[in-house]
Amino acid sequence: MSEKILLVLDADPPPRLGRLTGRTRILHTDAPSLAEHLPRADVLLVWDFTSRAVREAWPGEGPRPRWVHTASAGVDHLMCPELAASDTVVTNARGVFDQPIAEYVAALVLAWAKDLPRTATLQRAHEWRHRETQRVAGTRAVVVGSGPIGQAIAGTLKALGISAALVGRTERPGIHGPEDLDRLLTRADWVVAAAPLTRTTYGMFDAHRFGIMQPSARFINVGRGPLVVEDALVEALSRQWIAGAALDVFEREPLPPDDPLWDVPGLVVSPHMSGDTVGWRDELGTQFVELYELWEAGKPLPNVVDKKRGYVPGH
Amino acid sequence: MSEKILLVLDADPPPRLGRLTGRTRILHTDAPSLAEHLPRADVLLVWDFTSRAVREAWPGEGPRPRWVHTASAGVDHLMCPELAASDTVVTNARGVFDQPIAEYVAALVLAWAKDLPRTATLQRAHEWRHRETQRVAGTRAVVVGSGPIGQAIAGTLKALGISAALVGRTERPGIHGPEDLDRLLTRADWVVAAAPLTRTTYGMFDAHRFGIMQPSARFINVGRGPLVVEDALVEALSRQWIAGAALDVFEREPLPPDDPLWDVPGLVVSPHMSGDTVGWRDELGTQFVELYELWEAGKPLPNVVDKKRGYVPGH
Repeated sequence: MSEKILLVLDADPPPRLGRLTGRTRILHTDAPSLAEHLPRADVLLVWDFTSRAVREAWPGEGPRPRWVHTASAGVDHLMCPELAASDTVVTNARGVFDQPIAEYVAALVLAWAKDLPRTATLQRAHEWRHRETQRVAGTRAVVVGSGPIGQAIAGTLKALGISAALVGRTERPGIHGPEDLDRLLTRADWVVAAAPLTRTTYGMFDAHRFGIMQPSARFINVGRGPLVVEDALVEALSRQWIAGAALDVFEREPLPPDDPLWDVPGLVVSPHMSGDTVGWRDELGTQFVELYELWEAGKPLPNVVDKKRGYVPGH
Repeated sequence: MSEKILLVLDADPPPRLGRLTGRTRILHTDAPSLAEHLPRADVLLVWDFTSRAVREAWPGEGPRPRWVHTASAGVDHLMCPELAASDTVVTNARGVFDQPIAEYVAALVLAWAKDLPRTATLQRAHEWRHRETQRVAGTRAVVVGSGPIGQAIAGTLKALGISAALVGRTERPGIHGPEDLDRLLTRADWVVAAAPLTRTTYGMFDAHRFGIMQPSARFINVGRGPLVVEDALVEALSRQWIAGAALDVFEREPLPPDDPLWDVPGLVVSPHMSGDTVGWRDELGTQFVELYELWEAGKPLPNVVDKKRGYVPGH
């Protein structure tokens, strides 16, 4: 058995790969050198999941890795027609981010319901001002994206007594199809975007969708920035079509310091961190090593991305 | 049947009492006039639950109301030896605040775990700074107070995957006795005070108790201010014996604008509002009317306070 070459695209080296030393040659590369190294790699680990280098460096022909794993749930940053057309297998970090993101969404929902941001403002002003807050039990959520992340979000919201409807690409038991989305949006208190970024979902939260939401509704994007037409969201907030929003992901990341989004009233801006709880890098490293050992043994890989659709299909 | 006299101690008149008009004479009083009206009232409704007027006005002898209802869970503001020794029945608003307070505690826990306050600070500075946050599933909470509020808090935390131990006055199935408290505190991530204020619980969260908590622990008081030795909490925060705290209740309420508590780093100050969700005054009014109709019909009342202990005993 010849020594396999694992190419790792990373800024900071990943943890937990020590288990592979001795039987695998591990090469690290940055984005500019990726194209040069790709032809001799058996496996590519996209550890720097913010990089779009794979789209640019993926060879149209000739030798290339047989397997690409990305340490992320989304694969939009690496998919390109050449990769989609090749016989290279693509896997993702399905599972690692589900519960953390679900908790993050619950944190935002409860913070809004209990008016915590205003409590902080009033505290700074030494102002004792009693307010009535909202009960979340009995409210309604719509979660767009029916993969494991969306399901974890819906599960956590339901545990808080919130009725949560899941919307996926196709209708299945317990999951609404896209044809139900607008109807569900008109009566939702909380709208959560947790879909993969695909041709179908690109820009799906637009002026029409924000326009049909309730004035009391709040919108959360923990999926990918371009799910949302950012200008439309800003307008919806300024016209009070909806009561508030939180974006953890953006068209441009990191959001530049002079971006007007930082200062939009009613908008919470966070730096793409909803899924990243203490230990997440270790979990991602461990997950990759487990997949690597399956691959090495010639066993089927889990988390295989449907490269045409751009996500791991559900069951 | 002679017309009954219902005396209401209130600043703002309560809703939902309309159902009683025609068969009950309703008198409203403020604190200074309470003593004058008390002897001729059959029933006293303490609607202004912040008032301590009952303790001062309750007659040592002579005619007095046969029933006192308070629109609050705690009865510490009205109990006095004369009332405790009398045959007057005291009832409380058991049930109305359970779920709202549980959600409020969950909101604080999740906001801390997900570092939401710092997200707001960084947003104001237009600073994109990724952080790793905490996963709440798998963490440990101790809830002191095993009545319906404590039970709702524990239930909601458990729904989020947090292991929540309840501590009550006496050991019962599913509830720890006071002898377990210190051991539980040493390993808790979240400590929640939700006990009634009694001789036993007064000042129970003192320097010793904060000293044995983990440096990563966070403390929440949604019970009554004097459960906590405020100076000891301030010292615990400044010495980093614990990582943070939130007080919704205080020794003095409203907290005066010049109180140093407003500015203690790591302390969240809120104005006694954790249980007050939209519609709470209607719920309290409806609950009182339902009890009144039972009382009028000579039926046994629920929510009867054990006046010696200072709370409604559990089963």
